[in-house]
Amino acid sequence: MEQRLSVITLGVADLTRSRAFYEQGLGWTVGSAAEQVVFFQLNGIVLALYPREALAADAGVPSSQGSGFAGIALAHNVRRREEVDTVLATAERAGGRIAKPAQATFWGGYSGYFADPDGHLWEVAQNPFWELDAAGNVSLAPGQGA
Amino acid sequence: MEQRLSVITLGVADLTRSRAFYEQGLGWTVGSAAEQVVFFQLNGIVLALYPREALAADAGVPSSQGSGFAGIALAHNVRRREEVDTVLATAERAGGRIAKPAQATFWGGYSGYFADPDGHLWEVAQNPFWELDAAGNVSLAPGQGA
Repeated sequence: MEQRLSVITLGVADLTRSRAFYEQGLGWTVGSAAEQVVFFQLNGIVLALYPREALAADAGVPSSQGSGFAGIALAHNVRRREEVDTVLATAERAGGRIAKPAQATFWGGYSGYFADPDGHLWEVAQNPFWELDAAGNVSLAPGQGA
Repeated sequence: MEQRLSVITLGVADLTRSRAFYEQGLGWTVGSAAEQVVFFQLNGIVLALYPREALAADAGVPSSQGSGFAGIALAHNVRRREEVDTVLATAERAGGRIAKPAQATFWGGYSGYFADPDGHLWEVAQNPFWELDAAGNVSLAPGQGA
């Protein structure tokens, strides 16, 4: 199995609400959309919004609501510390919930978390040890780029 | 907020078990690791394995186990239909659970799902309408690449 990922699909309770959060709220551009799905082109991967029940059915798993933590967090890394604050403020204005205010981290960075309308967690982080190229691709170490 | 993603962190119950699944099982190479975390360099993003309880604490959310579906699915797209079967077989041999055997999809592709040792869902898909470049980056439409 090649060492890569193509799509992240977020199961959502209300597609219109979630699309508005990412599109109007965060200022992202929709790449394509159909009746039940919205796709955003990210850096080499795609973020999809899809009804939660339909996603569970598609994956062949029971679609209980679960309770609390989904066990996954996404992260959006930025180049400068102050961008962490800016992005979290944007997410909050968009109707996101600040799960953890921005703060210095034990690993030497600066980060906070917001939750989207379905509780999907996004960490917004500045990591002084990781490189971001012009396209925003992240490399664990110089020379290991995408 | 720029339209991109940097890291996906999977909360795991047993870091050694999960590392073995991705490293020995799927054949991936660890980019870096520390006592509590393992990083894999993917295409422009990073996949991290981190203890579930610690991830919940880091995000400032309660760490209940939830029940069933986490509301997120990752996808690994391949170029040829038969690769879907190959990758699913690899995942199964590695100790993954086949959540949905490979089959033709309503959207004109071919896909199946496996669950990693913590139940994190990966769809393995061949989508004839999406382009994969040499690095495996996916584009919604020609000209929209990373």
